[in-house]
Amino acid sequence: MYKINENFLKLQGSYLFSTIAGKVAAYEKAHKEADIIRLGIGDVTLPLAPAVIKALHKAVDEMAQAETFRGYAPEQGYEFLREMIAENDFKARGCEISADEIFISDGAKCDSGNTQELFSQDNKIAVCDPVYPVYVDSNVMAGRSGEFNKATGRYEGLIYMPCREDNGFVPDFPKETPDIIYLCFPNNPTGEAITKEALQRWVDYANKNNALIIYDAAYEAYISDPQIPHSIYECEGARTCAVELRSFSKKAGFTGLRLAFTVVPKDLKRNGVSLRDMWNRRHGTKYNGTPYIVQRAGEAVYLEEGKTQIQQQIQYYMRNAQEILKGLKSAGYTVYGGVNSPYIWLKTPDGLSSWEFFDFLLEKSNIVGTPGSGFGPAGEGFFRLTAFGSYEKTKEAIERIKNS
Amino acid sequence: MYKINENFLKLQGSYLFSTIAGKVAAYEKAHKEADIIRLGIGDVTLPLAPAVIKALHKAVDEMAQAETFRGYAPEQGYEFLREMIAENDFKARGCEISADEIFISDGAKCDSGNTQELFSQDNKIAVCDPVYPVYVDSNVMAGRSGEFNKATGRYEGLIYMPCREDNGFVPDFPKETPDIIYLCFPNNPTGEAITKEALQRWVDYANKNNALIIYDAAYEAYISDPQIPHSIYECEGARTCAVELRSFSKKAGFTGLRLAFTVVPKDLKRNGVSLRDMWNRRHGTKYNGTPYIVQRAGEAVYLEEGKTQIQQQIQYYMRNAQEILKGLKSAGYTVYGGVNSPYIWLKTPDGLSSWEFFDFLLEKSNIVGTPGSGFGPAGEGFFRLTAFGSYEKTKEAIERIKNS
Repeated sequence: MYKINENFLKLQGSYLFSTIAGKVAAYEKAHKEADIIRLGIGDVTLPLAPAVIKALHKAVDEMAQAETFRGYAPEQGYEFLREMIAENDFKARGCEISADEIFISDGAKCDSGNTQELFSQDNKIAVCDPVYPVYVDSNVMAGRSGEFNKATGRYEGLIYMPCREDNGFVPDFPKETPDIIYLCFPNNPTGEAITKEALQRWVDYANKNNALIIYDAAYEAYISDPQIPHSIYECEGARTCAVELRSFSKKAGFTGLRLAFTVVPKDLKRNGVSLRDMWNRRHGTKYNGTPYIVQRAGEAVYLEEGKTQIQQQIQYYMRNAQEILKGLKSAGYTVYGGVNSPYIWLKTPDGLSSWEFFDFLLEKSNIVGTPGSGFGPAGEGFFRLTAFGSYEKTKEAIERIKNS
Repeated sequence: MYKINENFLKLQGSYLFSTIAGKVAAYEKAHKEADIIRLGIGDVTLPLAPAVIKALHKAVDEMAQAETFRGYAPEQGYEFLREMIAENDFKARGCEISADEIFISDGAKCDSGNTQELFSQDNKIAVCDPVYPVYVDSNVMAGRSGEFNKATGRYEGLIYMPCREDNGFVPDFPKETPDIIYLCFPNNPTGEAITKEALQRWVDYANKNNALIIYDAAYEAYISDPQIPHSIYECEGARTCAVELRSFSKKAGFTGLRLAFTVVPKDLKRNGVSLRDMWNRRHGTKYNGTPYIVQRAGEAVYLEEGKTQIQQQIQYYMRNAQEILKGLKSAGYTVYGGVNSPYIWLKTPDGLSSWEFFDFLLEKSNIVGTPGSGFGPAGEGFFRLTAFGSYEKTKEAIERIKNS
């Protein structure tokens, strides 16, 4: 008789976005005239850059001719893209990462979920709170947690590291020493970045404790402050303690196109076993390569024309972020994020809970955002707005909030 | 201190195709004039069908406009594609499978590797021998096997079901009752199909023993015999014991485009837990949807124009298969497969081992194929040729073998 993986039964329903959708639908039904502005989504809205579109059409045409048709791609990704990434994302920033340490994939969500497969079940996992749920859920599914504790809103057996105002949304070292540490900077949902000095302390901590950092840098393209590191490999010693996840989703609007990569340095070794070789084997066994046409689209992001267009897209979103920041501040709100990230993390006023503020904003201003408590208990009392809307709608939303 | 997943250390190197490449390179170096014909690869060679190319260009153009741009796709796949599949691949064949039991993905290799995550570690796994290595390796990585036994060429703790001439390459029920059974028909590498009666016996066996069948039907588009089932759901009772894997790779030449799907019927339940809901959760947590443009390309495969073109591609390859079969038979070879599959499985002559025959064919006829023993010990004494080359080259290859 086959038996299921009972760890799945520990998982809590992911009710956050469906609860939001339900509340908005109910409000719309009762207020048909309401002009609702959505600043809750984490998805981009601008179309793909012209240079990316051109690269896609060209690659599609190649697939139409026997001479230029491409079948199975290398599981690790095409050399032309991996070399481009090594050069632009790493060597240009002084990071010593070579093309054969870069593994192309179809998404940082997949990579976030899959990296844990390289480790045994008895590793102690540390995550930030609030947190991107994939780090937690994929480890719960693999049996690295106990049951969910409804009273604390947390899984037993995991280490949660609160990120709140008092630590500048950068976690302190936990009391219990973890084996594997998930860090995401610039952070989703808080929108706050980490300084190079603070990240260096984490790298030193990991090396000292033989811990591994899984560093999610999916939002690095939004960093505007030159002091903020784009990659963990800007820190000394990161090659012996860190895996890095990157994505084209927010960098170049590829959420519907699917392209990402993971960096696994050759210096990552445990008892002589190379993590890079393990990941290579994992990729070779369970992955069959990212579509050729999508990899060509990714290449376009690094070429002159594409680079300029992508920068314009990011500037468009970051102008929204600035509008939100400025407007909320002038309305007396305490706000975080929005400088090195497309996310604004605001403190709910008058001690309202995250969900009370959600209702207030929906009813008073017809604006939809995301309650911070949906990302973890330490998110309570906070609220996430995103800069991915249109400039006009974003500006109007802020006017409404100011006038409410 | 973080600890690695030591099950990875049990994995054997996948030397098959690299050994082949090395031998071919050495021969070419020594015989610069040799005109080598490759019939070893499992990758398609014809370019994408015009209807697919048209759909891709159209979808790319949609991604260029804000009004038609698509961001994150539904993790389960777009409704337009799932409905098309339910209608054409299942309802049209009398199989009761609905769109919400179909999960679109980027490859049957990924799905083959990921399905095991739904089950606990202590399930007993049965695989055919010879076998597509992903079923074995993904279960070894998850800790469902013992060590590899060099003497037997098999992992301890797994059930191997030999597929040889004496059982028509369809496995007998094993002595030890398995919990999870991997079946692939039409089979890679043997190219042989299973009759509906034989498959029904497996379905009955699984239901009787509360076992689960993971049915890989990646090659179903090559079935020419109307008596051969395309889907396991053509058998009575399969909805309570079978998951099915399908692919666009061989059906429509999507090896470089990446599109597949898994069927998980709602009737699959263990202790009241729905496997369909578990897979949905797995997809939702660790997958972020297949590219919109690729799903539109998949839709084109089911529309009138695309359907005709895809059929022509399959006929082109199957004409190759017939040439190989006919030629080898007339040269006195014992051959299998090639009727409902693009693979031809030939018995090596004069008691040669698979590798001896590889060398013979390379040196005598300058033809590259795949030694059967590379797929498992029961593949010893067999050799795989594929129909995915050009017609002219295939014909010439067969002439060379006949004259050798």
